[in-house]
Amino acid sequence: MKKVILVIIDGLGDLPTPKTPLQAAKIPNINRLAKDGITGILHPLDRFVVPGSDTSHLAILGYDPSHFYTGRGPLEALGLGIQLNPGDVAFRANFATLENGKITDRRAGRVDSATAASLVKYLPKKIDDVEIIFKSSVEHRGALVLRGQGLSSSISETDPHISGEIHQCVPLDNSPEAVKTAAIVNKFTELSVKALSTANENKNRQKKANALLLRGAGEFVPAASFYERFELLGACIAGGALYKGVASFMGMDILMVSGGTGDKNTDLVAKAKATVRAVQGYDFVLLHIKMCDSFGHDGDFEGKKAALEKIDKIIPILEETGASIIVTGDHSTPVSLKAHSGHGVQILVYGGERYDDVKKFDEISCAQGGLGHISGKDIIPLVLNISGKAKKQGS
Amino acid sequence: MKKVILVIIDGLGDLPTPKTPLQAAKIPNINRLAKDGITGILHPLDRFVVPGSDTSHLAILGYDPSHFYTGRGPLEALGLGIQLNPGDVAFRANFATLENGKITDRRAGRVDSATAASLVKYLPKKIDDVEIIFKSSVEHRGALVLRGQGLSSSISETDPHISGEIHQCVPLDNSPEAVKTAAIVNKFTELSVKALSTANENKNRQKKANALLLRGAGEFVPAASFYERFELLGACIAGGALYKGVASFMGMDILMVSGGTGDKNTDLVAKAKATVRAVQGYDFVLLHIKMCDSFGHDGDFEGKKAALEKIDKIIPILEETGASIIVTGDHSTPVSLKAHSGHGVQILVYGGERYDDVKKFDEISCAQGGLGHISGKDIIPLVLNISGKAKKQGS
Repeated sequence: MKKVILVIIDGLGDLPTPKTPLQAAKIPNINRLAKDGITGILHPLDRFVVPGSDTSHLAILGYDPSHFYTGRGPLEALGLGIQLNPGDVAFRANFATLENGKITDRRAGRVDSATAASLVKYLPKKIDDVEIIFKSSVEHRGALVLRGQGLSSSISETDPHISGEIHQCVPLDNSPEAVKTAAIVNKFTELSVKALSTANENKNRQKKANALLLRGAGEFVPAASFYERFELLGACIAGGALYKGVASFMGMDILMVSGGTGDKNTDLVAKAKATVRAVQGYDFVLLHIKMCDSFGHDGDFEGKKAALEKIDKIIPILEETGASIIVTGDHSTPVSLKAHSGHGVQILVYGGERYDDVKKFDEISCAQGGLGHISGKDIIPLVLNISGKAKKQGS
Repeated sequence: MKKVILVIIDGLGDLPTPKTPLQAAKIPNINRLAKDGITGILHPLDRFVVPGSDTSHLAILGYDPSHFYTGRGPLEALGLGIQLNPGDVAFRANFATLENGKITDRRAGRVDSATAASLVKYLPKKIDDVEIIFKSSVEHRGALVLRGQGLSSSISETDPHISGEIHQCVPLDNSPEAVKTAAIVNKFTELSVKALSTANENKNRQKKANALLLRGAGEFVPAASFYERFELLGACIAGGALYKGVASFMGMDILMVSGGTGDKNTDLVAKAKATVRAVQGYDFVLLHIKMCDSFGHDGDFEGKKAALEKIDKIIPILEETGASIIVTGDHSTPVSLKAHSGHGVQILVYGGERYDDVKKFDEISCAQGGLGHISGKDIIPLVLNISGKAKKQGS
């Protein structure tokens, strides 16, 4: 009846150049768990397939993304604490800078969170019969929800991703729902640009936060909860809205940790201590740590290496719980590629499992591990097996 | 954004007696790629399932044979440059020797290619409303296509495979299409035997090429192209018609290499040099090398070993491209069995992937490799991941 702590180090996996950041890092605590535990390579989706963070977390937590994933939007909205209704269409949103009809900064100079929150009051609350809910989060980030009858997420994005004009939203099928939703989005873009451009908060800003770019449209379809499906009482500790949204989607409790920001300066010790407290009351605690992914995207080898060394230092705090500890990632973000890749991610399981001959936790060593190659969908059965909550199949 | 060269050594895998041909061969270049790259075992179809060359190539190239394979015939016909229409029924054909109503040589004494080509003019061009297209290739080999309304490939073969009478073609279901097609095939057999038996070209031949044996009936069903499906610009370099047919089925460009015959004396250096040129213009180059399979079927250990040593010598030519190089086979053809088998095939990936501790490319060493056991369907995701053309699943 062991409790299980699942530590997901976002973007953990890498490629050798000639060493990987994990090979170069001093991580004595994690290596000790690898030595005393069992290791392997995790393929969150299929072999060599490049996962997003959203689809990977869904897969690892037992929610097959081919069935449960409709887009990033609903997960972002849930992560910001917006209660969604079935049929809501949600988007990830960015405040951006529009000058002479062109987006010149997709993040509006990383507008501060307080200004962004203050700008929300200018946005339209209703267009035709559709209610509009917007919530800002950290810096330029936010989520938009459209609520009303006959909406569809089968529409294109307005975010140009690179600089350029805001894209027109177009329906991706011929349904009246898609046509209606695209029209609402375009009206929202027009009205919000107009209102934000004259906002007081933007008057003295060099990079005005005068446009909202939308992407990741998804329709909210509720699902049976993590507890209903697996009879595991689960809690999530994460900084980023997306990860909190994934947990919220599954009805897991979310522990908001002061200083656990989800960025490169997150307070890892605070998150580890919160994990220790959570283990008292929950069967399963997901501890998500974002920063390695950010360093991977920036191509910052030394940053990723230092982040791993920081993470290593909290391992003894987690060990005190006596819980089984699983350490893995949601995908590889090799610093040499500055992007997610389809290379598998190393995994170790310490407690409640066997051991193997592997003594180091890195991409090359774990490929020799006793777990072999496993899939995202294998993780919850692994957790259930360790926790003694697995149901025997047959008799 | 690496280019990828996929070298398929037909029938590569073997069994130890007590060494395998690969273990016995001097292959310093391939072993170097194995040492610096990552290795594993490939199961083209399912574990322990015996693949054909056709189904294996389809699987490895991302065309699930359970969906895309209707029979060997259409692939052979396409490989001979016959343009197929949807609904055409195609066969692999052999010129054979018929004496006193019995087949005494299934290959008509390996009739020379020029004589075979000259014999084609005697064959019927139409039976009832069905157009008949025949093309000869190397020696006794050829392909037959039936074109017309209401045909079916659900019919039996006429090839007795061992000596004996030419088999009657019978419908394998009760459909009028199968009944009609079987009748056409039997009429074709009768008319072609009659015409070939009196042909001038056969007058002085000891083993007359006076019959055509048909097998591998398949209906041509067109499929979306390799480029449409994977956005990889692909080229194929192969001698045998079947492999060119597989590539043609996928709409890949085929590079005809002078001297690249697909038999035991193929000009490997010419094929390697053509591969180097192809890499300039294509994302993905399939280099197919047949000879190991032929030696396997002949039970010729020394021949297979020598062929592997020949193949080893072209590796440095391929390396000059800077492309990622994948070396594998389409199935095992153990010399001790003289037939295809369901033993997995070794694979190495050099460039764009990690490395492992394996230092030799053979059946035993690669089973310890960092890739573990992979399937044919994993190869295109692997190629896409290396080439940077993989689409992220989720965000």
